[in-house]
Amino acid sequence: MSLQVDQIIERALDEDIGSGDPGSTLLFPEEARATAVIQAKESGILAGLPVAEATFKKLAPDLIWQPKTRDGQSVSSGEVVAELKGSLQGILMGERVALNFLQRLSGIATATRRFVDAVRGLDVKILDTRKTAPGLRVLDKYAVRAGGGHNHRFGLYDGILVKDNHIRAAGGVEKAMKLLREKSPPILKIEVEVTSVCQAQEALAAGAAVIMLDNMSSADMAEAVRIIGRRALVEASGGVTLEGVREIAATGVDWISVGALTHSAKALDLSLEVVSA
Amino acid sequence: MSLQVDQIIERALDEDIGSGDPGSTLLFPEEARATAVIQAKESGILAGLPVAEATFKKLAPDLIWQPKTRDGQSVSSGEVVAELKGSLQGILMGERVALNFLQRLSGIATATRRFVDAVRGLDVKILDTRKTAPGLRVLDKYAVRAGGGHNHRFGLYDGILVKDNHIRAAGGVEKAMKLLREKSPPILKIEVEVTSVCQAQEALAAGAAVIMLDNMSSADMAEAVRIIGRRALVEASGGVTLEGVREIAATGVDWISVGALTHSAKALDLSLEVVSA
Amino acid sequence: MSLQVDQIIERALDEDIGSGDPGSTLLFPEEARATAVIQAKESGILAGLPVAEATFKKLAPDLIWQPKTRDGQSVSSGEVVAELKGSLQGILMGERVALNFLQRLSGIATATRRFVDAVRGLDVKILDTRKTAPGLRVLDKYAVRAGGGHNHRFGLYDGILVKDNHIRAAGGVEKAMKLLREKSPPILKIEVEVTSVCQAQEALAAGAAVIMLDNMSSADMAEAVRIIGRRALVEASGGVTLEGVREIAATGVDWISVGALTHSAKALDLSLEVVSA
Amino acid sequence: MSLQVDQIIERALDEDIGSGDPGSTLLFPEEARATAVIQAKESGILAGLPVAEATFKKLAPDLIWQPKTRDGQSVSSGEVVAELKGSLQGILMGERVALNFLQRLSGIATATRRFVDAVRGLDVKILDTRKTAPGLRVLDKYAVRAGGGHNHRFGLYDGILVKDNHIRAAGGVEKAMKLLREKSPPILKIEVEVTSVCQAQEALAAGAAVIMLDNMSSADMAEAVRIIGRRALVEASGGVTLEGVREIAATGVDWISVGALTHSAKALDLSLEVVSA
Amino acid sequence: MSLQVDQIIERALDEDIGSGDPGSTLLFPEEARATAVIQAKESGILAGLPVAEATFKKLAPDLIWQPKTRDGQSVSSGEVVAELKGSLQGILMGERVALNFLQRLSGIATATRRFVDAVRGLDVKILDTRKTAPGLRVLDKYAVRAGGGHNHRFGLYDGILVKDNHIRAAGGVEKAMKLLREKSPPILKIEVEVTSVCQAQEALAAGAAVIMLDNMSSADMAEAVRIIGRRALVEASGGVTLEGVREIAATGVDWISVGALTHSAKALDLSLEVVSA
Amino acid sequence: MSLQVDQIIERALDEDIGSGDPGSTLLFPEEARATAVIQAKESGILAGLPVAEATFKKLAPDLIWQPKTRDGQSVSSGEVVAELKGSLQGILMGERVALNFLQRLSGIATATRRFVDAVRGLDVKILDTRKTAPGLRVLDKYAVRAGGGHNHRFGLYDGILVKDNHIRAAGGVEKAMKLLREKSPPILKIEVEVTSVCQAQEALAAGAAVIMLDNMSSADMAEAVRIIGRRALVEASGGVTLEGVREIAATGVDWISVGALTHSAKALDLSLEVVSA
Repeated sequence: MSLQVDQIIERALDEDIGSGDPGSTLLFPEEARATAVIQAKESGILAGLPVAEATFKKLAPDLIWQPKTRDGQSVSSGEVVAELKGSLQGILMGERVALNFLQRLSGIATATRRFVDAVRGLDVKILDTRKTAPGLRVLDKYAVRAGGGHNHRFGLYDGILVKDNHIRAAGGVEKAMKLLREKSPPILKIEVEVTSVCQAQEALAAGAAVIMLDNMSSADMAEAVRIIGRRALVEASGGVTLEGVREIAATGVDWISVGALTHSAKALDLSLEVVSA
Repeated sequence: MSLQVDQIIERALDEDIGSGDPGSTLLFPEEARATAVIQAKESGILAGLPVAEATFKKLAPDLIWQPKTRDGQSVSSGEVVAELKGSLQGILMGERVALNFLQRLSGIATATRRFVDAVRGLDVKILDTRKTAPGLRVLDKYAVRAGGGHNHRFGLYDGILVKDNHIRAAGGVEKAMKLLREKSPPILKIEVEVTSVCQAQEALAAGAAVIMLDNMSSADMAEAVRIIGRRALVEASGGVTLEGVREIAATGVDWISVGALTHSAKALDLSLEVVSA
Repeated sequence: MSLQVDQIIERALDEDIGSGDPGSTLLFPEEARATAVIQAKESGILAGLPVAEATFKKLAPDLIWQPKTRDGQSVSSGEVVAELKGSLQGILMGERVALNFLQRLSGIATATRRFVDAVRGLDVKILDTRKTAPGLRVLDKYAVRAGGGHNHRFGLYDGILVKDNHIRAAGGVEKAMKLLREKSPPILKIEVEVTSVCQAQEALAAGAAVIMLDNMSSADMAEAVRIIGRRALVEASGGVTLEGVREIAATGVDWISVGALTHSAKALDLSLEVVSA
Repeated sequence: MSLQVDQIIERALDEDIGSGDPGSTLLFPEEARATAVIQAKESGILAGLPVAEATFKKLAPDLIWQPKTRDGQSVSSGEVVAELKGSLQGILMGERVALNFLQRLSGIATATRRFVDAVRGLDVKILDTRKTAPGLRVLDKYAVRAGGGHNHRFGLYDGILVKDNHIRAAGGVEKAMKLLREKSPPILKIEVEVTSVCQAQEALAAGAAVIMLDNMSSADMAEAVRIIGRRALVEASGGVTLEGVREIAATGVDWISVGALTHSAKALDLSLEVVSA
Repeated sequence: MSLQVDQIIERALDEDIGSGDPGSTLLFPEEARATAVIQAKESGILAGLPVAEATFKKLAPDLIWQPKTRDGQSVSSGEVVAELKGSLQGILMGERVALNFLQRLSGIATATRRFVDAVRGLDVKILDTRKTAPGLRVLDKYAVRAGGGHNHRFGLYDGILVKDNHIRAAGGVEKAMKLLREKSPPILKIEVEVTSVCQAQEALAAGAAVIMLDNMSSADMAEAVRIIGRRALVEASGGVTLEGVREIAATGVDWISVGALTHSAKALDLSLEVVSA
Repeated sequence: MSLQVDQIIERALDEDIGSGDPGSTLLFPEEARATAVIQAKESGILAGLPVAEATFKKLAPDLIWQPKTRDGQSVSSGEVVAELKGSLQGILMGERVALNFLQRLSGIATATRRFVDAVRGLDVKILDTRKTAPGLRVLDKYAVRAGGGHNHRFGLYDGILVKDNHIRAAGGVEKAMKLLREKSPPILKIEVEVTSVCQAQEALAAGAAVIMLDNMSSADMAEAVRIIGRRALVEASGGVTLEGVREIAATGVDWISVGALTHSAKALDLSLEVVSA
């Protein structure tokens, strides 16, 4: 677990436990031990097992965690994904937080896998966006990788995306790119967002390393890909659905980014049951 | 904005901006000013305007924020929900984080309103659960209220829920309730989770203030409500869908709790456009 | 130790040690070991042993801590309450902070026990208030439990208390209660503060779950209890002294809350002595 | 307000408000305004007005705070110490935390003033100790100054105190002092704790800048003062009571330190009343 | 000021002021006002004025700050760089921290400018490294930009550098690059460190976007540049001195990175004087 | 490692690793193990080994750290200073941060040792100042001790320095000293900065415990030392160079403080090499 994830877990536990859990602490002695299982209640792709483990271990450092599968694997309804042995108080106090992580991340991984499967065989990468739950980006993006997707930039700092708003305010793509090529950290790639084939040509001429085709028709995307001719990477973006993704992929773009992977993923149903106490 | 929300916003900005936004800071002078609008791109219930405002003001303290509607109001596609005037850098750097808040919270409010509408006219409250995005619970629950729902407990600390796992490990509901009534903070209500009419009677006898009917049939729920006879509040829980919620409400339960409001809400589509710079 | 207590301990150590303890670190090598005892220097009820232990272990993770008694037990002057073996530097650097916790919490437990003893045999609970040392509430309230008392609400969030100021500003108790019953999280109990028998009746009629009799005479309290007739819980509050508490309890109230337990408790005298180094 | 005090206040508010104050926020609109007064309900020395002010302003930045007296002044029962005008929600949400600060700090200032008054006319300073509420030391020590006392060291870092435990473990006072004089930051004064006249002489010979007479009789203290002959400062410490303090002062010591100022001070009774809303 | 810089400043002030500044607070009333100037005591390139300003304003929000020059400008000995008017306490308490920032950052900017001047006229960029003072990277890198240099990656997250250690452990550059091209975030550039012309060819063949020539002779660097033929960017690194930098630049490399800019920069001498109080 | 140092290390790692290190985590499995050595690449005095160790252990708790020397020892070019065995990912991710600490602190220790050697045989102490890297003071001052120097005050809180600015604003040294002697914590020493022999006499008369001779000639310093006659400690300060320090020491001053030890120390060159993976 990285230090960032460690803090996310601590905050989540603090948020849920706050001034205490009178239920668990009054009903059971601190030394009570139990065995519990986490089970899938529907099929999907699992993600977040190490996060769930770390969550329980914050409350019960000597808990024994036995995963029955790995992140990125598919699970079916009824399948046990992990077994826990340790402090009964710890298991009960950590249950909701651990499941909240596991259900969200598995939901994202499951959604991602569906898009990845939909373009299988084509030379294209499914990417996420920055449309993640505030404060959970490293985890949301981890789940995308578990689902077989790739990560787009993590923030404003690890890649430069020149969007419509930037171009207009800067007085044109050429002017903007000139400034950025001179002054921005040269280790960063510069991507330019365009909405037409013509703008794509301009972006290419201005030196964009990546060109994002925003909400363009498949025909226009194919034309843009042809004209760019591998001199820049090409990303398709905007309202991508599971139904439409293969058609987009067939245009020859290199990347397809999908906001819904993280902003609208349905949680995967999972539960925890104490099997002996 | 409460201090908790303030910290959530600061963390979200830090997560997105990190070591800096070379795009905005190199392209535009610090003193550049702009006007932008936030628009709905689909219809739904808005929530999170004050959070979005606070997000931008962290980056641009003198930004002028003109909301065109209020949290809890319905908006339709194309409607402008707020206008911003101020630092161009601040608007561009805050855009994604502000929209992430606004889209998630509006998505929750929209989902909540659908459930509230589905039971309109019946004397029942739609409640949320603790199945919220880790670290965002106060906001997720705020959005539920904006949608017309009610909040269940915020954590393990402001209400006691005696679940299946507790009852078994404690050796029965009566024993568990006796201990809790003696020792737990008497200002806290005690709720007991049951899965049958018979257990509901036991819980009532043991002094539960609220009885949660977990995944029971409508017939059984109606029977339980009848037997309890207003001597305790009754909550229906477990796999509640928009299609099934009215039938559940008709059983006479007091509360219906719906995890999907927060764990699987689809983001509401909103965008920000710089209209003059 | 919960995460909250962990942070309280870290802050207390940081406050005391700051940029370093040149005394201990220059006089003794890091590897020096010692045995020390913590002794009571007056009789009282002990509370805080796990906090003291955690304090030392922050500085000396491999310290051996041997408690000779348990929180909630009475100790007499001269009694050894714990023995420590481990890093001499760690013991000397943690001494003051550990004792500060132990003395404060034992002082609170001792004061609480006196009130609990004073009402022994009567069916009433001694409760604390929110008048705790800022930042130490979870510990102050833990000490009250160790002393045999019960906890009132931990904050503004886990119970609603409608006070004089609220009622007046809201335009009457009925109006206030109507709003709260409709909108507040239904898992929260609502308590109403009253100063007369007449107001108690109003509060009852308005649906209060708990009625707080504030600074009323014993006769009035008895009358209020009689009229309420177990339809709500009754709390006595305001200037409760050890001398007067039994008379109040005899009025039949359910709870008696005492601010002095936490805002004015005298520290219990305890000391640490290095017995071999 | 220093940054440290600012954080203490934020933590105290977070501790009390947590996930929210449904009472105030549901009963009153955000824009409701009120006037309130803070009144003394017993006589004493006031301390903490700027802390109370800062507490309210965290919640209501535009609150108008009108102090009617100053920290360090004596107040009598019934006296208004401050008037507040501003957000009704803010006043109600901040009330308890602000009073908790004000009551604790005024209690410490009041206790301190009694000791200062008891030695008036003698050339001696009343000092505090490190026996403060964990996390509140800067405030507790501020209150001691407001009461007319002086601050001893703030932590292990701003003065070196060689105690019994140190001397024994180090193999004698001379050996310990030699090491410290060579190695410790030379800007720090070194104080040595002694329990007999003979040890006081040793400490003096070893170069102590301050000699602490721990739990010695008045006669012995007078003798020690005579022998030391102003070649070092002399501190009396250990079980100092209001009754005994003048006799100690009369021995000619320079400082008298009193742990009870901070570890056992009784809170000063103060209340807040909303006078118009 | 970004939120990150804000926290750096708060920590620096807390580090220096800690439990308080008895000097300033006892000698001067809170309301005392003063005018002060910050002066260069040697010539160099200034950087850090906004950081110094923010430092003072943390302590004295209404301080008037009048810069006499801008970051990135050269100053000469005796030149006033800023004038301050405001709280005397605030100016005295902030002096050291503000100067520590200003002197360090100006030292870095001055060193950077010397390297930039040494290669003037050649098409090459002077870059910094990750060899910055722990916790101060965003500021150290800001100062490099002020001096006319460019920033290399800010951390392990915004660019991938495959070093000797990685290549060996991964079993060769080709194998490493294959894995990274498939799995790493495609927005990140991949740079490979090489120590010979032959390795540079391998790196190019493996698809490196940037090739770092580590501690190679000028002749070898020139040869590598020739062979790479603009198909990748070329960075020279390792023991670059002011004397040798132009020779390196003449080899045709695109970037020259210099660790000494940040790990060994000499502070620029600056002082603050109160001119009227 | 103290809690303060622990936090410095965590912040430095977070600064460098941020959202992740795709290089190490994609190239190597989590369970890969390696052996690495840290080597000096030039001669100097080592400082920071325990900080480097703690840095790696944050990322790889079970890493085996085998130091080959100790802080404060001299090392020569090529010498191995520590060997590490453990997680390959952990070693690669911690490398830069650990070296940044080790190189800075060793640079400070090396510079300090040169000054200490230059005055060897004379009864004088080399002191540091508060001119440290913001946020790193406890470490910078630790390195000074490792180099054989002594620490001056750590902040504004552990010693009072009455400077030129204070004296003028307070209306003279006598007035300032009177106030401070009455009100300041009596455990703190008071030092007065002077720029002439005449002022030194004034300071002595006013009761200064330490007198700082700021930027005075050697002749004047010698005269001041003679006049003060051991009735106060004497510090020389201002523009002290390695060349001039022995002449200053010969004047008989007790302390010589050198800002350059910390504000301008050149990093010591050290490297890490993975020797087997």
